[in-house]
Amino acid sequence: MDPDTLRVLLDQVRTGQIAPEQAMTQLQQLPFADLGYARVDHHRHLRQGIPEVVFGEGKTVQQIVGIARALLERHGRALVTRVAPDKAEAVCRELPELEYDTLARVLVAMRAPPRARESAPVVLVTAGTSDLPVAEEAAQTLRFAGASVDRLYDAGVAGIHRLMGEIGRLSAAPVVIVVAGMEGALPSVVGGLIAAPLIAVPTSVGYGAALSGFTALMGMLTSCASGVTVVNIDNGFGAAMAALRILGPVRAKAAP
Amino acid sequence: MDPDTLRVLLDQVRTGQIAPEQAMTQLQQLPFADLGYARVDHHRHLRQGIPEVVFGEGKTVQQIVGIARALLERHGRALVTRVAPDKAEAVCRELPELEYDTLARVLVAMRAPPRARESAPVVLVTAGTSDLPVAEEAAQTLRFAGASVDRLYDAGVAGIHRLMGEIGRLSAAPVVIVVAGMEGALPSVVGGLIAAPLIAVPTSVGYGAALSGFTALMGMLTSCASGVTVVNIDNGFGAAMAALRILGPVRAKAAP
Amino acid sequence: MDPDTLRVLLDQVRTGQIAPEQAMTQLQQLPFADLGYARVDHHRHLRQGIPEVVFGEGKTVQQIVGIARALLERHGRALVTRVAPDKAEAVCRELPELEYDTLARVLVAMRAPPRARESAPVVLVTAGTSDLPVAEEAAQTLRFAGASVDRLYDAGVAGIHRLMGEIGRLSAAPVVIVVAGMEGALPSVVGGLIAAPLIAVPTSVGYGAALSGFTALMGMLTSCASGVTVVNIDNGFGAAMAALRILGPVRAKAAP
Amino acid sequence: MDPDTLRVLLDQVRTGQIAPEQAMTQLQQLPFADLGYARVDHHRHLRQGIPEVVFGEGKTVQQIVGIARALLERHGRALVTRVAPDKAEAVCRELPELEYDTLARVLVAMRAPPRARESAPVVLVTAGTSDLPVAEEAAQTLRFAGASVDRLYDAGVAGIHRLMGEIGRLSAAPVVIVVAGMEGALPSVVGGLIAAPLIAVPTSVGYGAALSGFTALMGMLTSCASGVTVVNIDNGFGAAMAALRILGPVRAKAAP
Amino acid sequence: MDPDTLRVLLDQVRTGQIAPEQAMTQLQQLPFADLGYARVDHHRHLRQGIPEVVFGEGKTVQQIVGIARALLERHGRALVTRVAPDKAEAVCRELPELEYDTLARVLVAMRAPPRARESAPVVLVTAGTSDLPVAEEAAQTLRFAGASVDRLYDAGVAGIHRLMGEIGRLSAAPVVIVVAGMEGALPSVVGGLIAAPLIAVPTSVGYGAALSGFTALMGMLTSCASGVTVVNIDNGFGAAMAALRILGPVRAKAAP
Amino acid sequence: MDPDTLRVLLDQVRTGQIAPEQAMTQLQQLPFADLGYARVDHHRHLRQGIPEVVFGEGKTVQQIVGIARALLERHGRALVTRVAPDKAEAVCRELPELEYDTLARVLVAMRAPPRARESAPVVLVTAGTSDLPVAEEAAQTLRFAGASVDRLYDAGVAGIHRLMGEIGRLSAAPVVIVVAGMEGALPSVVGGLIAAPLIAVPTSVGYGAALSGFTALMGMLTSCASGVTVVNIDNGFGAAMAALRILGPVRAKAAP
Amino acid sequence: MDPDTLRVLLDQVRTGQIAPEQAMTQLQQLPFADLGYARVDHHRHLRQGIPEVVFGEGKTVQQIVGIARALLERHGRALVTRVAPDKAEAVCRELPELEYDTLARVLVAMRAPPRARESAPVVLVTAGTSDLPVAEEAAQTLRFAGASVDRLYDAGVAGIHRLMGEIGRLSAAPVVIVVAGMEGALPSVVGGLIAAPLIAVPTSVGYGAALSGFTALMGMLTSCASGVTVVNIDNGFGAAMAALRILGPVRAKAAP
Amino acid sequence: MDPDTLRVLLDQVRTGQIAPEQAMTQLQQLPFADLGYARVDHHRHLRQGIPEVVFGEGKTVQQIVGIARALLERHGRALVTRVAPDKAEAVCRELPELEYDTLARVLVAMRAPPRARESAPVVLVTAGTSDLPVAEEAAQTLRFAGASVDRLYDAGVAGIHRLMGEIGRLSAAPVVIVVAGMEGALPSVVGGLIAAPLIAVPTSVGYGAALSGFTALMGMLTSCASGVTVVNIDNGFGAAMAALRILGPVRAKAAP
Repeated sequence: MDPDTLRVLLDQVRTGQIAPEQAMTQLQQLPFADLGYARVDHHRHLRQGIPEVVFGEGKTVQQIVGIARALLERHGRALVTRVAPDKAEAVCRELPELEYDTLARVLVAMRAPPRARESAPVVLVTAGTSDLPVAEEAAQTLRFAGASVDRLYDAGVAGIHRLMGEIGRLSAAPVVIVVAGMEGALPSVVGGLIAAPLIAVPTSVGYGAALSGFTALMGMLTSCASGVTVVNIDNGFGAAMAALRILGPVRAKAAP
Repeated sequence: MDPDTLRVLLDQVRTGQIAPEQAMTQLQQLPFADLGYARVDHHRHLRQGIPEVVFGEGKTVQQIVGIARALLERHGRALVTRVAPDKAEAVCRELPELEYDTLARVLVAMRAPPRARESAPVVLVTAGTSDLPVAEEAAQTLRFAGASVDRLYDAGVAGIHRLMGEIGRLSAAPVVIVVAGMEGALPSVVGGLIAAPLIAVPTSVGYGAALSGFTALMGMLTSCASGVTVVNIDNGFGAAMAALRILGPVRAKAAP
Repeated sequence: MDPDTLRVLLDQVRTGQIAPEQAMTQLQQLPFADLGYARVDHHRHLRQGIPEVVFGEGKTVQQIVGIARALLERHGRALVTRVAPDKAEAVCRELPELEYDTLARVLVAMRAPPRARESAPVVLVTAGTSDLPVAEEAAQTLRFAGASVDRLYDAGVAGIHRLMGEIGRLSAAPVVIVVAGMEGALPSVVGGLIAAPLIAVPTSVGYGAALSGFTALMGMLTSCASGVTVVNIDNGFGAAMAALRILGPVRAKAAP
Repeated sequence: MDPDTLRVLLDQVRTGQIAPEQAMTQLQQLPFADLGYARVDHHRHLRQGIPEVVFGEGKTVQQIVGIARALLERHGRALVTRVAPDKAEAVCRELPELEYDTLARVLVAMRAPPRARESAPVVLVTAGTSDLPVAEEAAQTLRFAGASVDRLYDAGVAGIHRLMGEIGRLSAAPVVIVVAGMEGALPSVVGGLIAAPLIAVPTSVGYGAALSGFTALMGMLTSCASGVTVVNIDNGFGAAMAALRILGPVRAKAAP
Repeated sequence: MDPDTLRVLLDQVRTGQIAPEQAMTQLQQLPFADLGYARVDHHRHLRQGIPEVVFGEGKTVQQIVGIARALLERHGRALVTRVAPDKAEAVCRELPELEYDTLARVLVAMRAPPRARESAPVVLVTAGTSDLPVAEEAAQTLRFAGASVDRLYDAGVAGIHRLMGEIGRLSAAPVVIVVAGMEGALPSVVGGLIAAPLIAVPTSVGYGAALSGFTALMGMLTSCASGVTVVNIDNGFGAAMAALRILGPVRAKAAP
Repeated sequence: MDPDTLRVLLDQVRTGQIAPEQAMTQLQQLPFADLGYARVDHHRHLRQGIPEVVFGEGKTVQQIVGIARALLERHGRALVTRVAPDKAEAVCRELPELEYDTLARVLVAMRAPPRARESAPVVLVTAGTSDLPVAEEAAQTLRFAGASVDRLYDAGVAGIHRLMGEIGRLSAAPVVIVVAGMEGALPSVVGGLIAAPLIAVPTSVGYGAALSGFTALMGMLTSCASGVTVVNIDNGFGAAMAALRILGPVRAKAAP
Repeated sequence: MDPDTLRVLLDQVRTGQIAPEQAMTQLQQLPFADLGYARVDHHRHLRQGIPEVVFGEGKTVQQIVGIARALLERHGRALVTRVAPDKAEAVCRELPELEYDTLARVLVAMRAPPRARESAPVVLVTAGTSDLPVAEEAAQTLRFAGASVDRLYDAGVAGIHRLMGEIGRLSAAPVVIVVAGMEGALPSVVGGLIAAPLIAVPTSVGYGAALSGFTALMGMLTSCASGVTVVNIDNGFGAAMAALRILGPVRAKAAP
Repeated sequence: MDPDTLRVLLDQVRTGQIAPEQAMTQLQQLPFADLGYARVDHHRHLRQGIPEVVFGEGKTVQQIVGIARALLERHGRALVTRVAPDKAEAVCRELPELEYDTLARVLVAMRAPPRARESAPVVLVTAGTSDLPVAEEAAQTLRFAGASVDRLYDAGVAGIHRLMGEIGRLSAAPVVIVVAGMEGALPSVVGGLIAAPLIAVPTSVGYGAALSGFTALMGMLTSCASGVTVVNIDNGFGAAMAALRILGPVRAKAAP
């Protein structure tokens, strides 16, 4: 029942065409979504300046092409995450507007670019070079939503001096995303240096005791720096979405 | 080496009392903290309007009394978390200014209240009544930092209608903290309804397959609502600290 | 907004006291529960003939007394599960109408007995004597909902002949609940002998490799008898509730 | 020893051909199955209207062809679950009567269709599109046993309004099967809305903290909606068999 | 239906008192146990020379007294394992014939001693002194069944020379039971030195990475000495029962 | 230092060629193996009638060919376990005397057959058809050592009557090996029916909650039938070696 | 067979009292320990300047008193680790020479002090105050062996500047022991700063995701600083023993 | 800010070109690394005589070629670990100076050999032949750093006599590295025989209960030989680096 239908129903009550009891019965059986909650959901996407992002894993080439084409038509841009290289190639053959980022493993098209956000860049920190794909998935998601990014890569705690020289950049960020595998120690160090929100992303980098990322995950959750929050292993997209929740609705940069 | 010592050293260079080479050697061996990074840390606490919070578990009565007394003298308020009832009683006998909140299990004194924050209240949602202690630990920490709180308790997903009626309150919040044990499903539902930052806190409520909170923790990390972030099991304090990182520095309410 | 309020609103629309647009706004913001879903929930309890059951663990004596008294006033009966002996004693001192079953660890009062169900008894099978408390929690819950129970205890697979002699009783049951710890093998054997629904309850009986009930839980989930379903470890109450969902709404026994 | 052999033995006793002591010895050594228990088992399959279903995983093409051919000869229909596409193709080349359902990954032939059941359709609910294969395995199994199915797909808790509009369909079902991966929250929500038996099926959808389906499994077992039962991860077949146990023996629809 | 009843039934068939068809019906519904399988079970206990052993954990004082008294009356001896000291004291007050072994934590009475077995002693090896309680539980069980025991304690692999000097005693044993906690390495070493059956018992001795005995358990299962078998953690009783299965039926020592 | 060398040394002492002190020094530094312990080891293999068995996994084709050729030259027979089909084919091309058993995945040659053991056959029981490879690895190992085997396959507990009819065969065995995956319940049932040694082998058959064989492993370790012992998952070879330890040294069948 | 016995045997060979064949038989059956390996073990303790240390957990008061008294008589000093306060009190009443260190939970007496080692002090670093007991257990063990200790406590990575100022002290150490709970990040940071051996000790400090020390343990094992080694959770004693292995045999400080 | 820049700044202070306050501000914002800590790091590598080692896993052929070429230019040698055979082949085609060790799976070039260390060889012990790759990774790393190696392979505890004959070689080592899979028992035995530092390396050899190396890892951590330290599963490189930390700075062998 959309707003128009509801208005008709109420008009019918007003003019006596149907009795209040009948209207009551119909209203009690209304599907929830029809009362506007779906619109709330819709509004949320508008406010964040980011249309639905497609999770590519487990979807066929045809499904990805179909959904991406629909999104391009409606929003003028589309982002598909977790796409393996060969699948990406097949998708691009059918929908050449999409470009493949081999590091982030995402397909993206931005014919209609998002409104740029006025906030300072989100800082992305990684512990090692193997954490780059996860960080770049976050970077591409942020860029897709109009947020700018400052990359601070390969700043692991075993060479802590590399990090110490960058406190200025870290302190300027509205949100910091720290991506690390192995023992996941980096968010504790960064979290002790800055006051801004810090989202930690464990990665599945490492072997044996790294437990496919669970050692980093557990380490980040029990971080000795308070106020650090954590997302799922390798979830660069989720970290970017959390950062966007913090950045809030898009407000375009003021004209000069 | 504090700033005064540094200034003296540089003055000695200026006046020729010591050679630049000698000064250089001393500077290269400076402990890092002495160059001001500790002050950065100190500034962070000032900005958030919250002095160091004491983790009471594993500390003796004498240790808690000593630290709390020092904090009270310096800041005019003190907060001690995770204090068992009998230990709390012993601490209060020696330091009667501290009051014990039996639900949150915290000791608190606020002779000098914090500056009130101007932001809308942080909404605290719990799934069941057994999640209250964790939520209240968060509430007390927020209150201690001058943030206001809106409680929305006992809104578990098995009675989803209770939650549906409160979308308005949820949507008004700058940050929402969702506390839930058992299957930890509540953050997924709430995260799908709002666009604001959502911090999920798993609790150790439940038995058997609840795995002392790990089922809720893993469930929240793999939430189907994107952008949800998670803290450690039962870590109400950590959730509040993460919320404070998002709220940012205290800005006092404008005078009327 | 309860039905009466809704009727008033619609009457106001009918008589022109408020405009359809205003009513529409109010209706779109209606809390979901007010549209009757809570009643659905209420109906469910009526149909199953069982008022809300109180989970006693983690509740104080005062809380249990308060809730039980309210339930007794409204429904004439009350059931509280997972009550330790000393807590039970304290509760009974304040509310002597409640009786304590030391085996099932439940408090129960049935001043107004439930309508007896017409179906054949639910058969409760246990592997060993240590599984009795869990089975009896299920038995008390079923009895509280008016269902009758047939107990087939101590029929573990290491003495399989004890079970073989009871196939007749098993085959007559509308639902069978099998309670077993250790390796949890009993549901596989029983599930292979009968065609009725079988709810398996793992118990935390055993040590070492019994893994506090997880070995039985995992064994039951991977049972070689198809169509066996499982509930949480030691969850006799949950198994009874699942059985009641299968038995369906109470239909009183026909008069002779 | 089948019934005929037993009858001959007893006749021999009656006519004095063999002494009671000899008969007694033979009877004490009778294999159990010969005394009718296998028939009970046989009866169960007849009552449920479903011949043995073949688990295809780990079986060779020749084994599947052989068993399916035998089942088709005896029952006029056959169902093979968990068949990979390439193996299915090989099987179909040799036994073209079998058709392959690529989504459910089952091979099926129904030359002699089952008797249709008179009960209302079993409702199958899934949280996301990746849960479809497991749900369809259940659907094909139910269809194979003559039960009808109502599909309610992609109703995850992060878009809870989609589910809310379908309470009517859910309430009409004699059994509801809820299939969900990730945090496995959907059964709790559905279980709180309906009074019918609910069988929850965790799926291995998700990565990292999804723990290959164990997070969903544990979440469902500790569901805050009481009376929910659970089957093994990805076990759509098992859920269907549990539903068939609840539906009970086939009773053909009454003729008009 | 015991043998006598069966004989009567067959006599009635022989004399024509009941028809073969009637007898057939009765025989098909015979409980399995009545056909002699329970006797098989009974025979097993007789052959091993050991009446049922009582598992004391989780049983009340009254239950232990009752069962032990019944066993004493029937067999002239009784063994109760896993009895805590205070419970043992209470039991002994009521049944003074029982004696408590504080190390093995068993209650035992042997008014009628078992027939002594003719085989060489079972050798019990422990890694450290903390493994003694588990080894002694095995020793008491073996003694209770008439088997003799040779103790080789505190022979851990970190002092491997202690073990090397005892190869003669080890080689003489019909069965060796090796009890070890921590890394559980001892069975591998002993298993490489002897050809006899070796039963490994992991103990819960150790902390942290000892994982309450699971490290020893897993280590023993993956032992590099082939043909080692394992029982549950701390299960001295089970190891003794496995040894008795290997020793076989009691054969009294030949008279001189 | 082999026995000959030792004899020479002692002769030199006897004849005064070297002083006792010099001999003493040499003897104190003797490698342990030279004092006869290797012979003990060697004797063990002779007594069991089984030369070293080669674990094929992780070995190259050349390594397998080399070791097998050496064993064939010395003992006239060789057994290689855990050989994948393609590797087996390559090995057989170079050493055609070896034959490949595709079910047991072993390579075997028995030009010089082992001495046949006089004991009754070892009974091998499996729960399902997927457990056959593990059972056949045990069978081939037993056959290689001259022991005879009685196969009782596909006797899972969900069709318990199939097992009940075979108690006679089970009771005749000197050792029973029970192979089962999924919930691992079969050893409990068999262990309750017989008095002989029972070696349980968990298999990695199953998915999800079967935990790659750990559910069966844990279930067998916590079996409610006492005296059951367990080997590693899928370790058919280890179970056979444990059975051979129980059967003891080969004693050839008496001539007629 | 001690050296004297061996010499006697060889003399008997030399003088012809026994034949070489007889001597050979005796030598082949010599217990290994008698050939001097026990002496090697004994020498090791002498070289490290540390008599056997008693593990107090699980030992009775009488056992501790007995062993400590024997050690005091032989070596003039004794160390007992892991002693709870009340047990310590009881031990001290009987053996007042022992003193109890409440922080390290050790009993120690050093009537005859160890020879002081000439090496620079071992540096002990802890992340937080709750790690002190484990660090002090290490300190007391080192002191007991004559090694000196430099304490650098409360230098956790969330306040990394505290550590940075102490690089000089760290760099001077022959061995560094780093004790940390929670995420166990400290060894990675320290390991990146120094070139000396670093022994990491995880502690069971923390809750929830700290997993009783396993998160720290796994984090340390997968440390991004290469060459870090790890001991068991809370094993301060083990870390000290590893440090002593590195320091090597005691060499007394040269006289001036 | 490198030392030259610092000197210039101080000269400017000395000559009055900039005021001490300005210099102070600049110094407080100095990146940490610029104050010499990176040089410490650099010094460490020089002292150990080993340039950075490249972890090949997860790096592309081009990345490996690039880094190795740079290292060869600067240091005259390069070591790349964890390189699969096909990747190694591709790298060698582009950089033929690198040689591939198929057992250790490393690429190495040593145009400019390291200075040979004067210490006795590091002894490498393995339990079985499958542990060789891990041991050889350690050997190649040690060789690359100028350390010599003594290999003692295939000395598992099930054939303990092989180890006993090698105590002399073990006792001569400054450090012993013990590599073992399965139950990981070997370090306990070796650790009890020698006084030198012992680094244990668990390997992922084994199946089922071997838990991909975690059983060996946990067993080594809970070793009954005190002072054993452990590195990550299969981490031969890490063990070598730990040994190098113990060997300390390179001191060239004295000329003859």
